[in-house]
Amino acid sequence: MSALLTDLYQLTMLQAYHDRGMRGTAAFEFFVRAMPKRRNFLMAAGLEQALEYLESLRFTEEEIAWLAGCGRFTRGFVESLAALRFTGDVAAVPEGTPFFPNEPVLRVVAPLPEAQLVETRIINLLQFQVMIASKAARVRLAAPGTLLVDFGLRRAHGAEAGLLSARASYLAGLDGTSNVQAGMRWGIPLYGTMAHSYIQAHDGELGAFENFARSQPAASTILLDTYDTEAAARTLVPLAHRLAREGIAVGAVRIDSGDLGALARSVRRILDGGGLGAVKIFASGNLDEHRVREFVAGGAPIDGFGVGTRMNTSADEPYLECVYKLQEYDGLPRRKRSEGKATWPGRKQVVRSFDEKNRMAGDLLTTADAVPAGQGLLQDVMRNGRRLEAPPPLDAVRRRAQAELARLPEPLRSLSAAPAYPVAVADSLRALAEEVDSRTAAD
Amino acid sequence: MSALLTDLYQLTMLQAYHDRGMRGTAAFEFFVRAMPKRRNFLMAAGLEQALEYLESLRFTEEEIAWLAGCGRFTRGFVESLAALRFTGDVAAVPEGTPFFPNEPVLRVVAPLPEAQLVETRIINLLQFQVMIASKAARVRLAAPGTLLVDFGLRRAHGAEAGLLSARASYLAGLDGTSNVQAGMRWGIPLYGTMAHSYIQAHDGELGAFENFARSQPAASTILLDTYDTEAAARTLVPLAHRLAREGIAVGAVRIDSGDLGALARSVRRILDGGGLGAVKIFASGNLDEHRVREFVAGGAPIDGFGVGTRMNTSADEPYLECVYKLQEYDGLPRRKRSEGKATWPGRKQVVRSFDEKNRMAGDLLTTADAVPAGQGLLQDVMRNGRRLEAPPPLDAVRRRAQAELARLPEPLRSLSAAPAYPVAVADSLRALAEEVDSRTAAD
Repeated sequence: MSALLTDLYQLTMLQAYHDRGMRGTAAFEFFVRAMPKRRNFLMAAGLEQALEYLESLRFTEEEIAWLAGCGRFTRGFVESLAALRFTGDVAAVPEGTPFFPNEPVLRVVAPLPEAQLVETRIINLLQFQVMIASKAARVRLAAPGTLLVDFGLRRAHGAEAGLLSARASYLAGLDGTSNVQAGMRWGIPLYGTMAHSYIQAHDGELGAFENFARSQPAASTILLDTYDTEAAARTLVPLAHRLAREGIAVGAVRIDSGDLGALARSVRRILDGGGLGAVKIFASGNLDEHRVREFVAGGAPIDGFGVGTRMNTSADEPYLECVYKLQEYDGLPRRKRSEGKATWPGRKQVVRSFDEKNRMAGDLLTTADAVPAGQGLLQDVMRNGRRLEAPPPLDAVRRRAQAELARLPEPLRSLSAAPAYPVAVADSLRALAEEVDSRTAAD
Repeated sequence: MSALLTDLYQLTMLQAYHDRGMRGTAAFEFFVRAMPKRRNFLMAAGLEQALEYLESLRFTEEEIAWLAGCGRFTRGFVESLAALRFTGDVAAVPEGTPFFPNEPVLRVVAPLPEAQLVETRIINLLQFQVMIASKAARVRLAAPGTLLVDFGLRRAHGAEAGLLSARASYLAGLDGTSNVQAGMRWGIPLYGTMAHSYIQAHDGELGAFENFARSQPAASTILLDTYDTEAAARTLVPLAHRLAREGIAVGAVRIDSGDLGALARSVRRILDGGGLGAVKIFASGNLDEHRVREFVAGGAPIDGFGVGTRMNTSADEPYLECVYKLQEYDGLPRRKRSEGKATWPGRKQVVRSFDEKNRMAGDLLTTADAVPAGQGLLQDVMRNGRRLEAPPPLDAVRRRAQAELARLPEPLRSLSAAPAYPVAVADSLRALAEEVDSRTAAD
């Protein structure tokens, strides 16, 4: 990604740091300020892309030439940008881990200009995947054991949102995606059926169904709702038997409009009555965790759901109040005290407790130096600009996320609002905040 | 953009078309089904990126190898994909034009496989820019003549969303962006100030302000709300005078938290009382068209606004009910009749009427062949896969959008819900729909 995918003020500040030779070590932390109203927990995601970005950060010759000619920066500063690489350390909460407001998810410790420059893209990458993983985890919790597929590429906000929402939703527990690029890049299982246009391009549904089934002889999925869903199901029954005699299997049908629950029932009756009990029913169209839960709770005979727009845009909570804040510079803890936006200073760590059933029982937000190595949620993942380990396979992250979801307190697993999960602030951290305030109060 | 940034079902359908030799001419149209509750009009945007995508569409060798090895497709079909280019025609509504539900914004006429394959990305590109331009136009209408800057990159949904929302919001009337890449790519004016971290990295505000002002001697913008906004303003007054004697100008201050209106008033008093009447006040933080309108209506002494997250995610309406539907194949008009999702068949055109004051008075949705060339909103923009003209400069599109906004009926320019703009359906189109239904009713 272009190093210029950043806010101008990062470069303006870097020019000022350059002018004053301010290259001391800075510690920035990324965290979410407040739990969105319609969420009970957040899920860490996007770390892999953030580390890729840091490892590959550099300005191209073309970008350097543009910066040199734009009239805003000194020559010496632009030359320093040409040589800029990320040389810092990163600690982070592993992807797939639930977390809560004010808990740092990622900490960057680097020379001030490097740590500052990356703010915009770090937020841009982490907010989006955290938001989608947190939403998709709810979809998973709404329908345990049911096939759930990401269908949201088309209405995701651009190409990268489509790609990363396929990753984040799979990570959080969905079973696959329709996004072919995501399948190629991460090996996410791919699912696809047919569109209404395929039916419409034929003179009748019978011919369309037959051509499609012959083209996908192992297991096709036939779309029923282009004209009349029940009539289409009745058209399919004799065709499926005729094709079966040639070894061609219709695996499933899809319903994409109307009253999905009622139509699934009538289609199930038609298929079962016609001896097609093995043909599955797949539903899509404006679904989210609430609608999926309704169908599951109501016993609708739906074997799988395609979940799209509302998940890939996190439509009920389309952004997180997340920030990346300077917490230490040149050996001194720092914080802002802006009205309603004050932060906890210094390098922090999160210690999680579990009850006797291995369920999460509460977190402690404390100073990093108070926690023995390995006992906090944040783990060292990058040193001197290089990752300490290769990224784990996405399937391993997904399994981890499922195990973590199983440890959530039961009320947090509900789709309804639950009481806030307890996150205590350590006395040492409160003391540090007071110390910082007394130091910066007088100017 | 990768040709694999598409839904699997496009490729599955293309395999089936390939098997049956279905390469007849198809006409697909992109449109929005319903006006979002919190919008009175939509604005066309994203055409340039859609055309770029179509012109450059091709599968890379790596992608072809992956497709050949994935076990889903025949060798002959994958070979045909290696040679696939977009060879069709496109007609579209120019960027910056207001439009309404059911009105086609873009029409693709091409051999069926080409027109089908591009569905996912066409929707992905057009929905996002239309959504952002439609939101940003409201922000512009809320504060005519006031400086408005896009600050939303960090919480946009990924890199492309950040880039394209800078473009779409500028197109719709904002004055600039903080997004440096968007500035480099499209020449959008760039704005930037400083972050709280800059202040925090210094031991006190006085030193931070002075260093920054010296680094940006022509006109710096000083952030006031890191600790105490009014105290910071009082710190700035003597400093600004001292620096002025060296020829260093403080251009503006920024307030990013707290009661922005009240703080702007007290800061204005402090600055004016200190002889800094020329220093402007810039406000940011959770703004949208409603909050901007409030400040403007209340006479808050704010000279410019940074509008971010809520605009770049279109947070109150984070997706559009938009589709790309097959309307004609092999010379025959088509439509789907799915419950609640029926479409108007055939190639269509939109004819717009104006009243004596040159305000928009109503649209007619009709069959394309009923409209003389040049009299409909959709204009030919691509033939045989090549653009007919170079894309217009973004500034020209922006001027066009402002002129178009001035022609909106007054109620539609309001931030409150207005009665729907009249879009009549021509009798010829209704007759065509009946004809299509009677043809496809019997199977």
